[in-house]
Amino acid sequence: MAAAAPPPPPAPAPEPNTDLPEGQPLGHPLFARIRLGTKSDVPHIHKLIHQMAVYERLTHLFSATEQSLSSTLFDSPPFQSFTIFILEISPTTPFSPFHNPTFSLFRPLLKTLNLSQPVIDPDDAAFTTAEDGSVVAGYVLFFRNYSSFMGKPGFYIEDLFVRECYRRRGFGKMLLAAVAEQAVRLGYGRVEWCVLDWNVNAIKFYEIMGAEVLQEWRLCRLTGDALQAYGSNTFNNL
Amino acid sequence: MAAAAPPPPPAPAPEPNTDLPEGQPLGHPLFARIRLGTKSDVPHIHKLIHQMAVYERLTHLFSATEQSLSSTLFDSPPFQSFTIFILEISPTTPFSPFHNPTFSLFRPLLKTLNLSQPVIDPDDAAFTTAEDGSVVAGYVLFFRNYSSFMGKPGFYIEDLFVRECYRRRGFGKMLLAAVAEQAVRLGYGRVEWCVLDWNVNAIKFYEIMGAEVLQEWRLCRLTGDALQAYGSNTFNNL
Repeated sequence: MAAAAPPPPPAPAPEPNTDLPEGQPLGHPLFARIRLGTKSDVPHIHKLIHQMAVYERLTHLFSATEQSLSSTLFDSPPFQSFTIFILEISPTTPFSPFHNPTFSLFRPLLKTLNLSQPVIDPDDAAFTTAEDGSVVAGYVLFFRNYSSFMGKPGFYIEDLFVRECYRRRGFGKMLLAAVAEQAVRLGYGRVEWCVLDWNVNAIKFYEIMGAEVLQEWRLCRLTGDALQAYGSNTFNNL
Repeated sequence: MAAAAPPPPPAPAPEPNTDLPEGQPLGHPLFARIRLGTKSDVPHIHKLIHQMAVYERLTHLFSATEQSLSSTLFDSPPFQSFTIFILEISPTTPFSPFHNPTFSLFRPLLKTLNLSQPVIDPDDAAFTTAEDGSVVAGYVLFFRNYSSFMGKPGFYIEDLFVRECYRRRGFGKMLLAAVAEQAVRLGYGRVEWCVLDWNVNAIKFYEIMGAEVLQEWRLCRLTGDALQAYGSNTFNNL
């Protein structure tokens, strides 16, 4: 189910750093940044989407290639249609406010965590960025949707994913909040996504985040051969 | 529920004209055209959305104005984000292939029905177009979505609506087919929409159209005050 695949829910557990007396640094800081994704992130995005397919046991539905992502995801300006936020982690160095053309479209969100244990990332080599050696830890892919009743756009979150070793530290919450903040900034009316009905932990998490789960609606999907059948002059034969 | 409000299902009944021997015209032709909607259609679109809210008994959620629709629906090229197809009817004159700037983006779809009874449209004055005196009978509002597993865009249908006196003549099917045809033309991977779980007639109709109803997914929505709360520097307070 590529559509609307929520991550393993970042559990609504207390943040490691909120358990500690203020101003008492620990030995294991973790610097996090959320920024706009660009074409140069595609190799990492492709790996993350594949990890999500593995997690959901849906690799048989996975057919995306770096080429297909690269040629389709960035064909309009960010926030107008498809948009990706990348979650980056640096275990050693705070992110410097260096200039980047995307920063004028979205000023990166920064956060510093103090952990009692360091994160062991078995995959860090595969997810290291060339730019500053930070490590890609997750992403959220969303696009504009529209409420005709409100007469306003909104955002629909298609994917929200955090790599396993970075889960349960509030990063899922940060990615969701980043999208919601941007929606408010643009005057949009709502943010929507889908969740599997048996994923009670995710549902609980989303409700804590302020979302309502709409029980009555079902998703309909026209795809594969059934969709292709509409390519052969169907309209005239109706 | 502005989101994904399917119409009263155009019942999968035989078309009036298919019951008749070929080449035998009846006394009541109806000429139909599906074309791209533009800003000049907003007064009609606004009325249609309101009729849908009335039908769904959700007028308390209806806050769209002509102004809000006009300023948000047409801010990017058709098919890139929000797109509207308008269904027009002419009871007397076939649509002429006159030139219109939108026709280069989407060539209108035309169909002629021969009816045994004329359609009595009590609202025709409110829905007559200035351009050629045809009458707006319905619309479909859709936008691009994205499948990360396929690495391809798709379309999501937010609204599909046919005015009451034009229902059960296959127009809903034509509007849905028009979106599906365009998806195939653009190489997209799927077309999706939502349906209320108790609307068994609509579900049956959609399945006949080739769609699968996904039973496990639930829509999550963050809106109103819960969304606005993210506007006040939430990220830094997470």
